[in-house]
Amino acid sequence: MRILVTGAGGFIGKAAVRALTAAGHEVCGIYRKAPPAGAAASVVVADLEDRRQVAAILRDVRPDVILHLAWSVEHGKFWTSPDNLDCVTWTLALARAAAEAGCRRFVGVGTCFEYEFPASGDCDEFTTPVGPRTLYGAAKDACRRCLETYFRDAGLSFAWARVFYPYGPGEHPDRLVPSLAAKLAAGEPALLSSGRMVADFIHVDDVAGALAALCASDVSGPVNVGTGQGVAVAEIARRLAEIAGRPDLLRIGALPDREGEPVRVVGSVHRLTREVKFKPRISLTDGIAAYFR
Amino acid sequence: MRILVTGAGGFIGKAAVRALTAAGHEVCGIYRKAPPAGAAASVVVADLEDRRQVAAILRDVRPDVILHLAWSVEHGKFWTSPDNLDCVTWTLALARAAAEAGCRRFVGVGTCFEYEFPASGDCDEFTTPVGPRTLYGAAKDACRRCLETYFRDAGLSFAWARVFYPYGPGEHPDRLVPSLAAKLAAGEPALLSSGRMVADFIHVDDVAGALAALCASDVSGPVNVGTGQGVAVAEIARRLAEIAGRPDLLRIGALPDREGEPVRVVGSVHRLTREVKFKPRISLTDGIAAYFR
Repeated sequence: MRILVTGAGGFIGKAAVRALTAAGHEVCGIYRKAPPAGAAASVVVADLEDRRQVAAILRDVRPDVILHLAWSVEHGKFWTSPDNLDCVTWTLALARAAAEAGCRRFVGVGTCFEYEFPASGDCDEFTTPVGPRTLYGAAKDACRRCLETYFRDAGLSFAWARVFYPYGPGEHPDRLVPSLAAKLAAGEPALLSSGRMVADFIHVDDVAGALAALCASDVSGPVNVGTGQGVAVAEIARRLAEIAGRPDLLRIGALPDREGEPVRVVGSVHRLTREVKFKPRISLTDGIAAYFR
Repeated sequence: MRILVTGAGGFIGKAAVRALTAAGHEVCGIYRKAPPAGAAASVVVADLEDRRQVAAILRDVRPDVILHLAWSVEHGKFWTSPDNLDCVTWTLALARAAAEAGCRRFVGVGTCFEYEFPASGDCDEFTTPVGPRTLYGAAKDACRRCLETYFRDAGLSFAWARVFYPYGPGEHPDRLVPSLAAKLAAGEPALLSSGRMVADFIHVDDVAGALAALCASDVSGPVNVGTGQGVAVAEIARRLAEIAGRPDLLRIGALPDREGEPVRVVGSVHRLTREVKFKPRISLTDGIAAYFR
């Protein structure tokens, strides 16, 4: 299949290009800037804000499937950035261009932060209420709602991946796992909140594998992309410190818990495993060990 | 107060400009084409798709409040038109420009078609689930969701009017009330479905009055704009035929019911009457009688 990937140069995008290429697809990547090493076989440098250019690219590439990953995710700012509104705009323009160019399937990428997190249990695609607290979550959810109806009317197949807590190579260095790993590797104290929050951490290569399988499937609607396993943040920190051989550097509870932080963010993976038929392969232990190699 | 009205030349827009002006506000209207007779005191002709122009207008006008009515509502097409996606884009860009220009309050205009209509009872802003069946409803709802979070973060006051079944002068001639009235006035048979559907018809001048009151209030979140009274479509047709003195021309049941049409679309008006303190003034009998003057 010919698959067009937006945001191909991003954290998940790079891994997705690799996974789709490995699965034998003809991959065209849209990059905002010059493409990195290991870019897609076919490369387009474009600004998704330019809807005429986007429409021209789609007419030219004629993809069977679009995997839309591009979003504004500046670390520390993306939760509330007004740029989220522009991301909605690009996404809707891309969707319209996709339908007009005769594309068959569109896979959008959302987030677990669309859910109103339950106090216990897992987030289910159909029974857990949607209720984002942030503009990031609201903007992603708004896209899903528009696209679900638009593509239904236009006769395109549509799925919406809700990605849980991705980690792995290429992640922003200030995010949880790499920042703790860097402190421990440098022999500096690693400061943490209570670390009670339980989250569904999934390796970026498994996110990419899941998205590749979702692109090739006909599964429609929202699909959680997680492992189905919750791990407390403090437990990850302990494992990292153990691998680093420096449990003495760990300062659990040294930082305050973030106000309003959810207690548990774990995705039910029934749809991913049974319908998309994808199972995550990389254990958390193996995934985080890679930070010290 | 200085109030900027988008879609000022539209069916509801014209009435809103009159109501806001009558309430003593300084009204600036944005018109897509040359403004009609009875336009706002201050007039701007602009295309909301041009976000730079929109930002410049807002910086220039510096409104206290924006009443955003502009939307693509081509009769018979707007339910499913892809233009709904572009309307989301304009709306988000306008919202961002409003916050950046120091606007204090934003009143967006949605629709009762955002609701998942209950089989009985009235649609309530907080207890009736949202579940639009059409792209029009989904796009309006997506805007509300994004703007609610965006304006919360930006510190602007935000309300979202859900308008029920507006009718009255300036309405598209092919819509229910004017088309039946025209047939009856011309002495031609007036064909109708079973007319069992019960809807909340509200005169456009009452819609405008409600929106003007909402602009001047500090009420936030979704607010139904209806009368709280349901009337069967067949009953309206009977009253029209009676006023026209031609009950013999009425053919109730001559047309099939529309598939998937809701049974009852009536809005709870607790918020409108108690919080916004607006009560509709024009009875359905008076409102439809005007079609024969």
